[in-house]
Amino acid sequence: MAHIGELSVQSRERTEFIKLEGEIAKIVADSGVRDGICHVYVLHTTAGVMINEGADPSVVHDIGAKLAKLAPREGHYTHADAERNADSNIKAALIGSSVTVPVKNGAPVLGRWQSIFLCEFDGPRRRQVMISVIGG
Amino acid sequence: MAHIGELSVQSRERTEFIKLEGEIAKIVADSGVRDGICHVYVLHTTAGVMINEGADPSVVHDIGAKLAKLAPREGHYTHADAERNADSNIKAALIGSSVTVPVKNGAPVLGRWQSIFLCEFDGPRRRQVMISVIGG
Amino acid sequence: MAHIGELSVQSRERTEFIKLEGEIAKIVADSGVRDGICHVYVLHTTAGVMINEGADPSVVHDIGAKLAKLAPREGHYTHADAERNADSNIKAALIGSSVTVPVKNGAPVLGRWQSIFLCEFDGPRRRQVMISVIGG
Repeated sequence: MAHIGELSVQSRERTEFIKLEGEIAKIVADSGVRDGICHVYVLHTTAGVMINEGADPSVVHDIGAKLAKLAPREGHYTHADAERNADSNIKAALIGSSVTVPVKNGAPVLGRWQSIFLCEFDGPRRRQVMISVIGG
Repeated sequence: MAHIGELSVQSRERTEFIKLEGEIAKIVADSGVRDGICHVYVLHTTAGVMINEGADPSVVHDIGAKLAKLAPREGHYTHADAERNADSNIKAALIGSSVTVPVKNGAPVLGRWQSIFLCEFDGPRRRQVMISVIGG
Repeated sequence: MAHIGELSVQSRERTEFIKLEGEIAKIVADSGVRDGICHVYVLHTTAGVMINEGADPSVVHDIGAKLAKLAPREGHYTHADAERNADSNIKAALIGSSVTVPVKNGAPVLGRWQSIFLCEFDGPRRRQVMISVIGG
């Protein structure tokens, strides 16, 4: 069985980490899948999807700051168009476009401290996220 | 339903980003899977698979240049064998060995600017890529 | 068909790369799945899962050393709690929480040099790993 859900997420900052696990849990519950996996995917190249700590917001702040240090906006890039977002593509490459989590008893499985984040690296923008639930 | 396809890809440069989405779409169409997910996997440790912008080639150029700055070939590595490719393993670790995309109506789902790249970090070489299509 | 297995892994060092592919192969064999995919997932935010070279231990040593250079423990972090592990969360973000590999003829598919590593970034700790095998 394969079930697809979609989320439309509006970011407010250039770099922002937005928790999705609440809405993902609803999509998984509605899918009717009891056991399987759930794939969370962003359809953009200047944003990513990441699992990390959601309890203390300073953790994702530190991750964003480190990525900004590794790929500063004002760097020497060949993709120097009007948008000045070469750094955003690099951050997305390092974080990745999707995550997958197990589904057990009709719910996504997350550890005690884990959240699923849409990682905005070139906001504010509206972002499309696709959730695929696979199993039986 | 699970369907496996394979690609054999010849790289021409030491660092090169090679688009695979055209051949992946053919494998997905041939699989008979209408809705599900598609997993794209490289069977090597000095190459990766990445989703990022495919329209402007300067984007992947910048990603390759940033990875070379983070892990220069002439660094201080303990894996200093005749191949001098410790940097390639590090780049593969940061990018990852596989990506997964949704399959909808018999086709892989990609955003407007997204391409699926085989990332060569120690070419030129021939690389084996395995594509698994899961769904119904 | 969806089958879930679990591993409990004890790390011994703060940074350590522990091979899991032997135990994963047993879980895949026991699942009864012949063809599909296998998802390997760590339920913690200061550890990751990675595929990379397993033959020469200097390769993962170099990866750990590079990550320590990119995110030193003694950096300037806002998540500066008693555990002093902001660097561990950043390393986990760069490596990722899971990998997926194909399953063919009842076995996980790995290239000649590939191993599946639990990446400990804040050990020693006991870590929970969930393995989901999807297919038929």
